[in-house]
Amino acid sequence: MDENRKLAIICSKGTLDMAYPGLVLANAGRMMGIDVMLFFTFWGMEIIAKKSVDHLKVVPVGNSAMHMPQFIGGLPGMTGLATVMMKKEIEKLDMPPVHEFLEMIHDAGAQIYACRMASDMMHLEREDLIDEVDAIVGAMEFLEMAEGAQLLFI
Amino acid sequence: MDENRKLAIICSKGTLDMAYPGLVLANAGRMMGIDVMLFFTFWGMEIIAKKSVDHLKVVPVGNSAMHMPQFIGGLPGMTGLATVMMKKEIEKLDMPPVHEFLEMIHDAGAQIYACRMASDMMHLEREDLIDEVDAIVGAMEFLEMAEGAQLLFI
Amino acid sequence: MDENRKLAIICSKGTLDMAYPGLVLANAGRMMGIDVMLFFTFWGMEIIAKKSVDHLKVVPVGNSAMHMPQFIGGLPGMTGLATVMMKKEIEKLDMPPVHEFLEMIHDAGAQIYACRMASDMMHLEREDLIDEVDAIVGAMEFLEMAEGAQLLFI
Repeated sequence: MDENRKLAIICSKGTLDMAYPGLVLANAGRMMGIDVMLFFTFWGMEIIAKKSVDHLKVVPVGNSAMHMPQFIGGLPGMTGLATVMMKKEIEKLDMPPVHEFLEMIHDAGAQIYACRMASDMMHLEREDLIDEVDAIVGAMEFLEMAEGAQLLFI
Repeated sequence: MDENRKLAIICSKGTLDMAYPGLVLANAGRMMGIDVMLFFTFWGMEIIAKKSVDHLKVVPVGNSAMHMPQFIGGLPGMTGLATVMMKKEIEKLDMPPVHEFLEMIHDAGAQIYACRMASDMMHLEREDLIDEVDAIVGAMEFLEMAEGAQLLFI
Repeated sequence: MDENRKLAIICSKGTLDMAYPGLVLANAGRMMGIDVMLFFTFWGMEIIAKKSVDHLKVVPVGNSAMHMPQFIGGLPGMTGLATVMMKKEIEKLDMPPVHEFLEMIHDAGAQIYACRMASDMMHLEREDLIDEVDAIVGAMEFLEMAEGAQLLFI
């Protein structure tokens, strides 16, 4: 394998279902010795904000893949129900909850960055973010670190 | 052109409108002699599951680009209507329906993989997936195959 | 830095919140001397169509990161409210509105392309698109131009 292989994953979504793909790929990458960096921006800030990391949700509305009619998915309680169901499936697969997963990946050497602009937009300071965040960086700093990396925008 | 050019497309969405971009790029890639692999995960499993591949939908709710007020888009029948309309537009452009398109791309040499974790999560076995799926693979296997590839996460 | 570094960003979403990430990265890329091309397709056509570029919206429905219950987010007026709020935050950060931002990025040397298939599907002609669009190109032309680039699919 190329010893300098790098993977840079931009996480821009704040839902439970779109949090896992980045975490799973980051974890797999680290297990293979790939340099991995995660860059959280826009709604993805939810995944690294202390107040929200344990409360991510799956939303059936707007996602026909969940096979719930849109006028039912929008009823009170349906988002909560879908979230509980997905959490059970995730647990059955022995996958850790999001915060624990981030801890694991970080311990394994992945770098975790928050987007400066998104932090400003959402009024999040360093202390509002989980400890695993290595730094708050701008888009140019991110692009500089991601030189030569395979990129993903989730 | 670089003879070893590779394109690896991760398809994570299960709606009709987000199925086509991956298929169109995969098809274009193969026509240019690029090595193409498609990796279906999360909601993208809908695109390669026998029971859903012919029933993908476009959902106006949550998508302001469809110019339908959110409280109307959520009414019964609106998802079906939007889906019929998009299918007509796709047909007018002489693009094949999703399953046929996957067959074409596969015949042209693109590799089609299903994510093991997503298959487990959605209780899909090999026989539940369309014949064009070459294998069910884990995230590490995928990353190994995608070394040196240009990556896309749809 | 690698002098031939290239970044090719595919923009497939038509909402205000998903317009900015591509613009911000394109802008940062150009400031660093990276070759940048933006390729607008599917719902992303909204961002470069004259009639819609100034009217992009943020949709709280389907996005739990906005912390609005789904049955409230779907009520008349909520999409408009969320959009006004986000525009204010964007202005506070001294970021230009979308059309002005595209102009800036284009002046800085980024190339802006519209997808031919999406233009056909949405019945958009060249004169329906903003002046900054350099050309309407097919998927193969795009892939050819994007050879050796880091790719992003937004």
